[in-house]
Amino acid sequence: MNFSSKLIEQSVEAFASLPGIGRKTALRLTLHLVNKSPEVTQQFAEAISKMRQHIQHCSICHNLSDESICNVCADKRRDRSLICVVESIRDVMAIEDTAQYRGLYHVLGGLINPLEGVGPGELTIDSLLHRIAPQEQPESEVKEVILAISPTIEGDTTMFYITKKLKGSPVKVSSIARGVSFGGELEYADEVTLGRSIVARLPYKLSE
Amino acid sequence: MNFSSKLIEQSVEAFASLPGIGRKTALRLTLHLVNKSPEVTQQFAEAISKMRQHIQHCSICHNLSDESICNVCADKRRDRSLICVVESIRDVMAIEDTAQYRGLYHVLGGLINPLEGVGPGELTIDSLLHRIAPQEQPESEVKEVILAISPTIEGDTTMFYITKKLKGSPVKVSSIARGVSFGGELEYADEVTLGRSIVARLPYKLSE
Repeated sequence: MNFSSKLIEQSVEAFASLPGIGRKTALRLTLHLVNKSPEVTQQFAEAISKMRQHIQHCSICHNLSDESICNVCADKRRDRSLICVVESIRDVMAIEDTAQYRGLYHVLGGLINPLEGVGPGELTIDSLLHRIAPQEQPESEVKEVILAISPTIEGDTTMFYITKKLKGSPVKVSSIARGVSFGGELEYADEVTLGRSIVARLPYKLSE
Repeated sequence: MNFSSKLIEQSVEAFASLPGIGRKTALRLTLHLVNKSPEVTQQFAEAISKMRQHIQHCSICHNLSDESICNVCADKRRDRSLICVVESIRDVMAIEDTAQYRGLYHVLGGLINPLEGVGPGELTIDSLLHRIAPQEQPESEVKEVILAISPTIEGDTTMFYITKKLKGSPVKVSSIARGVSFGGELEYADEVTLGRSIVARLPYKLSE
């Protein structure tokens, strides 16, 4: 691309450095901002710059937060005996969107992946173990840990590691239910899901 | 979407205000920046904010420029007798990329579109006429105006308007050649292009 302006070129490079945005899209976004008033761009740049400067990880669950303790951990009405362990904050948002869960979270910040050099030390597993069995208190208020992690190789390794670390602890370890989607047609379910959902069948209960 | 952080929400809203970026993509871009160092975001925000603050329209051709006169108009080696009239700066970039044109440009900033309230007054047509026939000089250095405008209803109206305004002027008005693409198969050309390229046929010249 042949830019008549260095400023335009730098703005296009900036946008194109973001994932999934090519140079054509970056130019379209830049020209969009040029056609709007300078205040629009100022507000855009400030929102992003302010977010990055002030964003923190919650010191308890490692979720992204405006304060040092996130609003889930700070909410007194939530069930402190339940911790749902997830890979990233995107999973927290997905579960919160269902409005079905009232416990706390723990964000691992990734999954164990030896090929990419991610060991348990890079994740927040130690912090999770400390939450479940704090040294200061004789008894933990945590009763159950729910593993809401994808059953990939990395996910299975991570779940195995956490479960092994919790062996001997009175805390119950569970995993989210997997099977054919509610409302999903059997013929469109993938083979692994359908196969596993037959192996892991449950007693049929009439809904009340 | 259920945001645990107001800062994240504001950054997502900022990205999602750009054309073609939805809230899911906006979240992905925001989390990408969170995972990089704060300097990356700072540079990103500064590049865009600086661009919008300092960008200008060239006072001669209305192309986007860092200075009050763009580097095409300022280039002494370019042919000042030719002006290529285009709709937007994107067209300037496309023509510059071909490296086939050594004249100057004139960016209209749109096309005449009465339905959307865009009349000749909203475009830079007066400035084009002034460039072609300046009052200060008895004779203009411009010899030819090339209309490189899409043959849509708006484009045709704009070309008609400019041509009519230039009637009686010694300046030659031409339009870029249209027809089946070089290397294009006849069977894949659209009907209008193929039909018009037969009507507008040219004497066949052996290339030397």
